[in-house]
Amino acid sequence: MTRIPARPLAISLGDPAGIGPEVVAKCWDRRSAFNLPPFVAIGDPRSVAGVWDGPLELIDDPRQADAVFDYALPMFQIAAAAGDIPGHPTVAGAHCSLDSLEIAVGLARSGSAAAVVTGPVSKEQLYSIGFAHPGQTEFVAERCGVSGGNVAMMLAGPTLRTVPVTTHVPLAEVSQCLSASLIEARGRTTLRGLQRNFGIAEPALAVSGLNPHAGEGGMLGREEIELIQPAIAALRAEGWRVTGPHPADTMFHEGARARYDAALCMYHDQALIPLKALHFEDGVNVTLGLPIIRTAPDHGTAFDIAGQDLADPRPMAAAIQMATMCAANREMAE
Amino acid sequence: MTRIPARPLAISLGDPAGIGPEVVAKCWDRRSAFNLPPFVAIGDPRSVAGVWDGPLELIDDPRQADAVFDYALPMFQIAAAAGDIPGHPTVAGAHCSLDSLEIAVGLARSGSAAAVVTGPVSKEQLYSIGFAHPGQTEFVAERCGVSGGNVAMMLAGPTLRTVPVTTHVPLAEVSQCLSASLIEARGRTTLRGLQRNFGIAEPALAVSGLNPHAGEGGMLGREEIELIQPAIAALRAEGWRVTGPHPADTMFHEGARARYDAALCMYHDQALIPLKALHFEDGVNVTLGLPIIRTAPDHGTAFDIAGQDLADPRPMAAAIQMATMCAANREMAE
Repeated sequence: MTRIPARPLAISLGDPAGIGPEVVAKCWDRRSAFNLPPFVAIGDPRSVAGVWDGPLELIDDPRQADAVFDYALPMFQIAAAAGDIPGHPTVAGAHCSLDSLEIAVGLARSGSAAAVVTGPVSKEQLYSIGFAHPGQTEFVAERCGVSGGNVAMMLAGPTLRTVPVTTHVPLAEVSQCLSASLIEARGRTTLRGLQRNFGIAEPALAVSGLNPHAGEGGMLGREEIELIQPAIAALRAEGWRVTGPHPADTMFHEGARARYDAALCMYHDQALIPLKALHFEDGVNVTLGLPIIRTAPDHGTAFDIAGQDLADPRPMAAAIQMATMCAANREMAE
Repeated sequence: MTRIPARPLAISLGDPAGIGPEVVAKCWDRRSAFNLPPFVAIGDPRSVAGVWDGPLELIDDPRQADAVFDYALPMFQIAAAAGDIPGHPTVAGAHCSLDSLEIAVGLARSGSAAAVVTGPVSKEQLYSIGFAHPGQTEFVAERCGVSGGNVAMMLAGPTLRTVPVTTHVPLAEVSQCLSASLIEARGRTTLRGLQRNFGIAEPALAVSGLNPHAGEGGMLGREEIELIQPAIAALRAEGWRVTGPHPADTMFHEGARARYDAALCMYHDQALIPLKALHFEDGVNVTLGLPIIRTAPDHGTAFDIAGQDLADPRPMAAAIQMATMCAANREMAE
């Protein structure tokens, strides 16, 4: 059984017109079945009340969450200028989601919250109010004083953890975005994250190739020889357990997965195709390299189904469970 | 239960020093458990006898296979110049594997065999004797008078079938290798193959995007807009059921897979990562677009374990089962 961290988790609800409020409320409903520790939801209470009939109680100190959590969903109130309608995002809702995120991160930075779990935001709406980061991950990194090059986005499911070296770049530009130093940095962040967040003393990292058959000795591309092998050698020289470059297509079957703690992948779909094929409902986004714990469910705002009681709370529950596990590991190590 | 085709299957053993002879012999051993119909193995009998103690009987007419199959492995003899040692490929072995392939294809072309299943060959050895094709698939296509552009390599498992549009090219060159006409041609070959080989009257094809999030409306790459959408539109205009371009990372979970009969993918690993993550032991390579049925197990010669009784016959059994099913579907349609 997972140890329960001493402090509550802070959950930003994300866009008030998305499915964030609904899935967080449903997680509180099923807190026993999902085995969830006390958390405080941060956002506009009306966005929850509009899609959920359960009890919620406003609090103004995270230390109250523990006592309230038994009988009501504890909430930190952020009022949107107008009540948002599910499925219809607004500029006011974007401000609300940004403030929620800011407060959730602040509570974790101050030590009042054990971890941050972030609900899904609308990037389009955030960009319209001047948000200048590619996503919440980079925003959280900046608020923690960590450069984007030193954080890593891990996708973690029960039987597989993957980390993409490059993320949202066109496939044709992946090769030119890769460098030995970037691969090495992401590898080191991943290995340290496996130690700090997952409590694995001597983590094993499997590094993928970029090309079919990992380049087949240079016949199908030279990035393995020129970039990936040197990065692996540098990490090994520091004493880390690192293997590869492996052909990406034979890295993800059951027998192969048993041989490593995380797979370092060269691009977005190389990491996300196997993760979502195997763990569509319970894959969690974990940001590594931060002084705080941050997880998120691996889905978007789903405006098309918001407010219809259709949203599946399992991905959010998995994100809360993962944050709980990581926070407990860090507290034990401290 | 699968219908048994009226004629035997022809199986080329592949490189005599690889695991081909062993896995084919093991398939005969377990012909009842695997529910396999009569087949004739084509290759050097010594390559089988060296790794297997069971009975084999030489035949010189495929019509004898049916009667022999009950008590012995029926073989068409191709003698290698010297007896090959498992794990140590030779030039003589390459000639043997090429002759085996030639005869297996010939028997299917003449109608004496219901289908061809090809064992794994060593491309390195084949290249050394002047073999000028990228692989067995292209060789078989040429012998059938079909241009490489009109065949498609399908990887098929029990819950997923994928077809890569491009195959053995460096990742950085995938974009420039793609064209709307190539995507359209591969899509059409796939759809016709689903009808002819798999007996699906109105097949549904899901087409992947190339870029993360299928390009996110052009923000992360324009191949979806400029190449993939026009190819999909052209196929739809012919009346085919085709959807996409889909973000590749959300195409392969259980719920998504239920919505299509095959996924058309833009590059090697996009097709092979999900297939092998889900079906490492029972994924089969099926060549579509040929006048004959041709399947192959999705593994190589495995020289490192040849002759040690370590080779798993399940992939070869899956390839034989798939060929049987396809042959039965074609015979029913004729």
